[in-house]
Amino acid sequence: MKVGGKHTRSIWVNSETGMVQIIDQRWLPHEFRVVDLVSRADFTTAIRDMWVRGAPLIGATAAFAMAAEMKREPGNANLDAAWDVLHETRPTAINLRWALDDMRDLLRPLPEADRAEAAHKRALDIADEDVECNRMIGVHGLEIIRQIAAKKAPGEVVNILTHCNAGWLATVDWGTATSPMYHAQQAGIPIHIWVDETRPRNQGALITSWELNAHGIAHHLIVDNAGGHLMQHGQVDMVIVGTDRTTAHGDVCNKIGTYLKALAAKDNGVPFYVALPSPTIDWMVKDGIKEIPIEARDGAEVTHVQGKLPDGSIGSVQISPDGTPGSNPAFDVTPRRLVTGLITERGLCAASPEGLAAMFPDRVSA
Amino acid sequence: MKVGGKHTRSIWVNSETGMVQIIDQRWLPHEFRVVDLVSRADFTTAIRDMWVRGAPLIGATAAFAMAAEMKREPGNANLDAAWDVLHETRPTAINLRWALDDMRDLLRPLPEADRAEAAHKRALDIADEDVECNRMIGVHGLEIIRQIAAKKAPGEVVNILTHCNAGWLATVDWGTATSPMYHAQQAGIPIHIWVDETRPRNQGALITSWELNAHGIAHHLIVDNAGGHLMQHGQVDMVIVGTDRTTAHGDVCNKIGTYLKALAAKDNGVPFYVALPSPTIDWMVKDGIKEIPIEARDGAEVTHVQGKLPDGSIGSVQISPDGTPGSNPAFDVTPRRLVTGLITERGLCAASPEGLAAMFPDRVSA
Repeated sequence: MKVGGKHTRSIWVNSETGMVQIIDQRWLPHEFRVVDLVSRADFTTAIRDMWVRGAPLIGATAAFAMAAEMKREPGNANLDAAWDVLHETRPTAINLRWALDDMRDLLRPLPEADRAEAAHKRALDIADEDVECNRMIGVHGLEIIRQIAAKKAPGEVVNILTHCNAGWLATVDWGTATSPMYHAQQAGIPIHIWVDETRPRNQGALITSWELNAHGIAHHLIVDNAGGHLMQHGQVDMVIVGTDRTTAHGDVCNKIGTYLKALAAKDNGVPFYVALPSPTIDWMVKDGIKEIPIEARDGAEVTHVQGKLPDGSIGSVQISPDGTPGSNPAFDVTPRRLVTGLITERGLCAASPEGLAAMFPDRVSA
Repeated sequence: MKVGGKHTRSIWVNSETGMVQIIDQRWLPHEFRVVDLVSRADFTTAIRDMWVRGAPLIGATAAFAMAAEMKREPGNANLDAAWDVLHETRPTAINLRWALDDMRDLLRPLPEADRAEAAHKRALDIADEDVECNRMIGVHGLEIIRQIAAKKAPGEVVNILTHCNAGWLATVDWGTATSPMYHAQQAGIPIHIWVDETRPRNQGALITSWELNAHGIAHHLIVDNAGGHLMQHGQVDMVIVGTDRTTAHGDVCNKIGTYLKALAAKDNGVPFYVALPSPTIDWMVKDGIKEIPIEARDGAEVTHVQGKLPDGSIGSVQISPDGTPGSNPAFDVTPRRLVTGLITERGLCAASPEGLAAMFPDRVSA
């Protein structure tokens, strides 16, 4: 989407240098830094340390990483080693595994001499496919927003709450949860977004706010605690969130705190939608709460908060006393009974085994 | 409770100087600063700018403020003016109004010459009554913890989640939600506390963690998003929170985000208790969601986070992009259907009109 009026993607190949480039998102919203990714360490660091984040962008970055590896050393040993090392960077992200499998399946049958070029082309295609996929999520999500707007007075704002960042910076472009918002704006529907801060890493405050601000969509930042109150008082018309992993039964594993918002939405009759590209669906997993391992991240992310200091530099403040440890589960699972619908690139479906199977008959496992 | 091994209250009269002293809690947990309160501006600033916070401590501070005013100018005009100015500092806090009414009712019939001494004595009594009230909350809450511990293997830890700070620093001593915890520790029951950070002002991270750390109770700091996940996975045995205002029907107005934890507790069969001294009950209000006005605080509390910088100084970081506004409702209402029970100084009662009326037949309104 737009940054300073210029259309930008989250990962691209520089047309002059041929280098893969990303936005080092750790510095957003305070600085817009573009970096080259070249070595294996560049790519693994970028994924593991969350220079890039968001399931689809992680997948695309992994694809470009495999392409870089094939350019360096196209043999089978390196193909497998790269798969292993990249997979370890963010084991919860199903798109990461999907992209790595896709690349390996494509490359293994090819002569080594052809692998680098084929890998590069496939990585570009994966990026383009993600953009098209997210565009279609927006087209389908727009219809839901249209229906909500139609029940309001002409010109009355549709209030949408979102958690974390499932925006274009979490994908290659458009975003998942934000794609319907960008489409609604293009369609002239007045919208306003409640952006959950999303502690501990503040992706809502840092990234989603930055995206909406850069593109010109009305929004307010709220703490993660506030959504329930807003829903109790009719100030939220719908919730749209993304997902890192969706089970074949429709459970949704997303950033920690999503479950709490889904409970509040249910309690107040607010529709709760999850926007997802189908590679996010893990057809092998049914019960998300029982089966999905939740990443435990560093407690220092809880005890400290990073941001911009008054002098403009980036710094970190400790909010807890010395001696208090942090505990940091990074995701939670929202059970399907709390999900109004899944917005996929093929259309809207119920968060149920039947709904998903009917939408993706070609993908569902036996 | 204890600080550096020494028993400390949150407000007291210095035995040497006769000055009212408080802990300026804005600097916790990084610095322990004691300040004198003398002028009307000292007191109103301390309450309004949250040098002291927590309903019972605000009430006690207001009582000492009235005493200071009577020493300065004991006439009726000043009695009324002080009431008005102090009431405006935190209009949501029901204890503030209770203490001010109590003082005015006591003082108005007295000769002006007797008011200063009577006011000072009454303020001391209000502080002592709060301590005794909270001690009794702990005695009753301890029984609930005992029952939960009895269902576990011997020595197995009881995990308690709390939100915001309803600790001794929010009262004069013991705290409300924390009093059962301190009593459980004294009784030798192994406990561990999950402390919600409590954005935007981080009272959990700053104050509750500091209290528990200073007194030696095992705890972890978690983000406000994490509680639902922990409950889904059996890692929370009970929730105990405080309340700023409890309606005659049992609805609970507490720090923003309490409602979300109550929803998660209900969804996972985790008992959700609210600890409260009876002055926190507003017998005139029934439906908390419809009737209680919610304080909207400065959006900068959402866009900025204060803490300790690496050099040890206290600073603030901006987490949002320039141009993104914050929206900051400070409280929410947890409807009584989500509350397992109210722990009062008289004992445990149901969060219902009948439960409260039976426990406080002498207080209930017609």
